[in-house]
Amino acid sequence: MSQQLKYKEISGGVTTPQGFLAAGVTAEIRKNGRRDVAFLYSETPAVAAAVYTQNQVKAAPVMVTQEHLAQGLAQAVVVNSGIANACTGEQGLADARMMAKLAGDALNIPAEHVAVASTGVIGEYLPMEKIESGIKEAVSLLSTEGGAAAAEAILTTDTVTKEYAVQFNLGGREVIVGGMAKGSGMIHPNMATMLAFITTDACVEQQVLKLALRWAVDRSFNNITVDGDTSTNDMVVLLANGQAGNPDFSADQPEFTLFREAIYAVCVELAKMIARDGEGASKFLEVQVKNAASEEEARIIARFIAASSLVKTAIFGEDANWGRVLSAAGASGVLFDPNLVDVYLGDLLVAAEGRGLTFDEERASAILRERNVTITVDLHQGNSLGIAWGCDLTFDYIKINADYRT
Amino acid sequence: MSQQLKYKEISGGVTTPQGFLAAGVTAEIRKNGRRDVAFLYSETPAVAAAVYTQNQVKAAPVMVTQEHLAQGLAQAVVVNSGIANACTGEQGLADARMMAKLAGDALNIPAEHVAVASTGVIGEYLPMEKIESGIKEAVSLLSTEGGAAAAEAILTTDTVTKEYAVQFNLGGREVIVGGMAKGSGMIHPNMATMLAFITTDACVEQQVLKLALRWAVDRSFNNITVDGDTSTNDMVVLLANGQAGNPDFSADQPEFTLFREAIYAVCVELAKMIARDGEGASKFLEVQVKNAASEEEARIIARFIAASSLVKTAIFGEDANWGRVLSAAGASGVLFDPNLVDVYLGDLLVAAEGRGLTFDEERASAILRERNVTITVDLHQGNSLGIAWGCDLTFDYIKINADYRT
Repeated sequence: MSQQLKYKEISGGVTTPQGFLAAGVTAEIRKNGRRDVAFLYSETPAVAAAVYTQNQVKAAPVMVTQEHLAQGLAQAVVVNSGIANACTGEQGLADARMMAKLAGDALNIPAEHVAVASTGVIGEYLPMEKIESGIKEAVSLLSTEGGAAAAEAILTTDTVTKEYAVQFNLGGREVIVGGMAKGSGMIHPNMATMLAFITTDACVEQQVLKLALRWAVDRSFNNITVDGDTSTNDMVVLLANGQAGNPDFSADQPEFTLFREAIYAVCVELAKMIARDGEGASKFLEVQVKNAASEEEARIIARFIAASSLVKTAIFGEDANWGRVLSAAGASGVLFDPNLVDVYLGDLLVAAEGRGLTFDEERASAILRERNVTITVDLHQGNSLGIAWGCDLTFDYIKINADYRT
Repeated sequence: MSQQLKYKEISGGVTTPQGFLAAGVTAEIRKNGRRDVAFLYSETPAVAAAVYTQNQVKAAPVMVTQEHLAQGLAQAVVVNSGIANACTGEQGLADARMMAKLAGDALNIPAEHVAVASTGVIGEYLPMEKIESGIKEAVSLLSTEGGAAAAEAILTTDTVTKEYAVQFNLGGREVIVGGMAKGSGMIHPNMATMLAFITTDACVEQQVLKLALRWAVDRSFNNITVDGDTSTNDMVVLLANGQAGNPDFSADQPEFTLFREAIYAVCVELAKMIARDGEGASKFLEVQVKNAASEEEARIIARFIAASSLVKTAIFGEDANWGRVLSAAGASGVLFDPNLVDVYLGDLLVAAEGRGLTFDEERASAILRERNVTITVDLHQGNSLGIAWGCDLTFDYIKINADYRT
């Protein structure tokens, strides 16, 4: 949200910062022959921060990673796709611990320095022999070129890989932040998110890292929605290995603002890629709520609008149904005066002071025919902005989800 | 929820209780030539109670009806379908007031004793000439046989009319409760609901009537969900004209329990009819959450499951994806121990103590091929029950909603 960007976008992902290696291999956990084990490794132990799903039903890898990262240190992340290892009880926990141990043993690091993540079908057990051979193969292939293969191996119903990286100057040193993410359905994070792994060679203390990650996630992954369902397996892990050699900084220095904006830049681009690749999506939706009483209220309303099935089907149908936008805002639970609200489709004002205007339906149609649609709601209640991202609700969403398990 | 029913179902609707007349006419507000003005009239002034949408954006008729019923008395209800008169500002309020005045003038009763309701497209103004001629025609046709025509005139995307009535003995007199409802999309009531009008010839005080209605609505209309969207126009109005001549009763007498269960019986049957007729629905879904710590928590979880897009698409796809059920329960915000939870599809146990079982997939498929599907979640946390009703999410839901406005 900086007016003047102090970082620049560069091509790359998790292995673009110094000292990070990755690999992605096929262990035949997924039935379609695609890569399904991803490995991420820092040559030196990294400071770690993470956020996790707030779903009461947490998958085993979420619980194990929470335990392992409690000390704020990690050196590797191992991820499988195909099976979520959720609702798998004691066996699932033992499997997740074993997954970390196998990874640690292969690299000669403590299992506690390994984060584990899984994504896929709920309620099935991990095929541990396949996991083991996948880990061994991945470790043998670790390289600074491996980011793209790792980004592939974490996908499920996603249609594209999601990678992003930025570079900036921090205390006289060039620092890079890179990331990869997956997520396409069961996307409606609640103070946490789908899978995302972010790396940086910045030198940063763990408490500062946590603050930056929380700030960035609240404004990015937590504001995307595909279908209103919050997963059991969501996590975002951020590793900082310090290899850039920048001087240490605290949360009240300007370097912190710069750093967290770079983390935010990577998080928000990955988040938008997830919304754009939402299951069955034909359009990308950005909802801006302006002039709210607070940033949090603005985000709640923006999310409610982006999550409304009726708004999403109207976008799919290219129907300028602004009434559904106002109705969704009103159902958000946030107090505001409906008689002050303006609604824009793109830059076309379609409702003012809570009432519909006679607008140019041709212009509205042209705006809605675009692949990217922006809805702006001006509350005239204060001066805070909140943005949420989503997608339309299409026949293909139903096709994908009516028979996912089999 | 009584084990032993003290009332009996009878055929009928709003004109089945003594002293109520109704009519439904075509005023050409809807473009398809269907009935679109409904009128309901009690020969004598009736005690009235109502609940309204909690959406911040309230339609003009909701605001006007709230004003008019504040005194707890009403003698007529006039409803139009086709246009919601929502997001229409001062003009909309003036139109809603005029609608009540026209009805009052035609019947020689005060406008303040008329409730008004509208349903349809948001953001358009009412065609007041059509409303006026519709009201005149309806008043000329008022009869005790008019309930069915009125039930037709309140529909929008509904495919069937929704009427229900029960009869019971109250203090030595035969009392009847009858009702009609509409609702098919934008159905996710929040302490209020879509349009429903309930009549009774019971003699009952206004405070007692309010208590009975609130209790019944919380257990019926507030537990149905079609698409997670809460409308701007929801209302339930209950009129009691006292013509049955039963003795007065207070909220701590057994008659009250009997009365509110009869009101509940009508509300819950109408609510289920709405869920069953959900836009595009091919299946009716009942979610029972058993052994929760409280009735309210049970209802919250049941609603979350019934509202989950992923559960709804799995039901449409006849896929025994119990993991999505557990995940939706976990995302509800209610605290419970996931390791205690059992999940049933119909009477087939598919997950126990939070983990999947090897179950008979053939039996599961047979259960899911039925038109009515029941999911039961046993939390093993307490002994409270909550039930929610919904429907599957289908291709037709999207077809109906992608181009509703035009």
